[in-house]
Amino acid sequence: MRNLLVTMAYDGKHFHGWQIQDNAISVQEVFQNALKKVIGTVPDIKGCSRTDSGVHANMYCVSFKTDHTIPCERLTAALNRFLPPSAAVMKVEEKPEDFHARYDCKGKEYIYRIWNNEIRNPFMDGYVLHYWYKIDEQKLDRAAKHFLGRHDFTSFCTVDKHRRKGDFHRTVKNIAVTRDGDMVTIRIEADGFLYNMVRIIVGTLLSVAQGKTEPEDIDVILSALDRSKAGPTAPPQGLYLNKVIYGP
Amino acid sequence: MRNLLVTMAYDGKHFHGWQIQDNAISVQEVFQNALKKVIGTVPDIKGCSRTDSGVHANMYCVSFKTDHTIPCERLTAALNRFLPPSAAVMKVEEKPEDFHARYDCKGKEYIYRIWNNEIRNPFMDGYVLHYWYKIDEQKLDRAAKHFLGRHDFTSFCTVDKHRRKGDFHRTVKNIAVTRDGDMVTIRIEADGFLYNMVRIIVGTLLSVAQGKTEPEDIDVILSALDRSKAGPTAPPQGLYLNKVIYGP
Repeated sequence: MRNLLVTMAYDGKHFHGWQIQDNAISVQEVFQNALKKVIGTVPDIKGCSRTDSGVHANMYCVSFKTDHTIPCERLTAALNRFLPPSAAVMKVEEKPEDFHARYDCKGKEYIYRIWNNEIRNPFMDGYVLHYWYKIDEQKLDRAAKHFLGRHDFTSFCTVDKHRRKGDFHRTVKNIAVTRDGDMVTIRIEADGFLYNMVRIIVGTLLSVAQGKTEPEDIDVILSALDRSKAGPTAPPQGLYLNKVIYGP
Repeated sequence: MRNLLVTMAYDGKHFHGWQIQDNAISVQEVFQNALKKVIGTVPDIKGCSRTDSGVHANMYCVSFKTDHTIPCERLTAALNRFLPPSAAVMKVEEKPEDFHARYDCKGKEYIYRIWNNEIRNPFMDGYVLHYWYKIDEQKLDRAAKHFLGRHDFTSFCTVDKHRRKGDFHRTVKNIAVTRDGDMVTIRIEADGFLYNMVRIIVGTLLSVAQGKTEPEDIDVILSALDRSKAGPTAPPQGLYLNKVIYGP
């Protein structure tokens, strides 16, 4: 059996997340449909993570096993022919037999985009959070740096009964808030993410923008291990899974 | 009576062009509906140009007369409240009594965006022309420079029986083809444009990309004054009205 890793991207505005579900279109469903048309069967597909409805992916990884002999490059082109315009396969690679898109993932990078102008950008509906009041991105960046390193992120996690309980420690390797004109981007890389972790971090940084929270308060909120101490969960449409990192 | 100039932007994917029409949603219609809600009447609205279905505007200008006393800044905010997310008013200004958004326009700039990679960009559906084969943007730029200056653009115009006949001379002031990664952008500024002029120029430049036309052939096609000598009309979704230029 071949073990294939597919790297794709999708515009989350057109999907109810990655995971297949009844009564709503998911990326997994359109991917499986495309795969069925190309290789004739639907193998057991491993996605690198769940993504919520409306969340985008500049990079998303999927692995599955097949004994079909189609070369990787032809599979890329064929899948793109059968996927809708809002999803695309960037490449397909052969991987060792025991490779798994989720378990072998060493880290991920997310970005969160905020359109920071009183006037909305009509091209950005569904692709950014529109935030009216001027953001001091340097203050937000100072606050963000408090997340660096290994912490228990219980305060920055939505409890989800379908998720495994256990270790809420994660290591944030990079985090930065930058501005390019009216676009403020929050970039965060970690070895793993809890459910809604990025969106709650962003919501908390926006509460810093509003002056309700000071940069130093982040340490206190982290130590509290209490979701109610952090800011609100920022809406999904500004969030992009940007990189999925595997070992060498 | 006040004479107001409204500068707006819209995502053309969601509209059948500027001009109001039966059975299809236009920017003019949603603008008039928003205006009616704010000032209570629908004045005679002058748009700076027609735009075809699917064409975008980073800048579009509209003028109209009203005796309503609402300050310009409040009118901006109020219109944005009633416009759909895919259209936005950037600003409203007072103009002299005889100002007209179309007749006073001294020039316009359009851009045309081409996603030049075998793999489509899933975020760009409806916002670019997807062109698979590698474009030599320097060769296209050399070809484009032949359009500079004052020419009779009969070969680069769709004959439209609803349009005034007459002078087909236009002056191209700037034209350039540039690349940023996989995105090729064609930028063209002129004192005015004939119907489909940018899209036929782009279609002809793509025929240069394909090696069917050489840069020097542009002069021959211009001199022919014959639409059939130029390339095809490029599709609308890559086209953006980018600047509308008025006198000092």
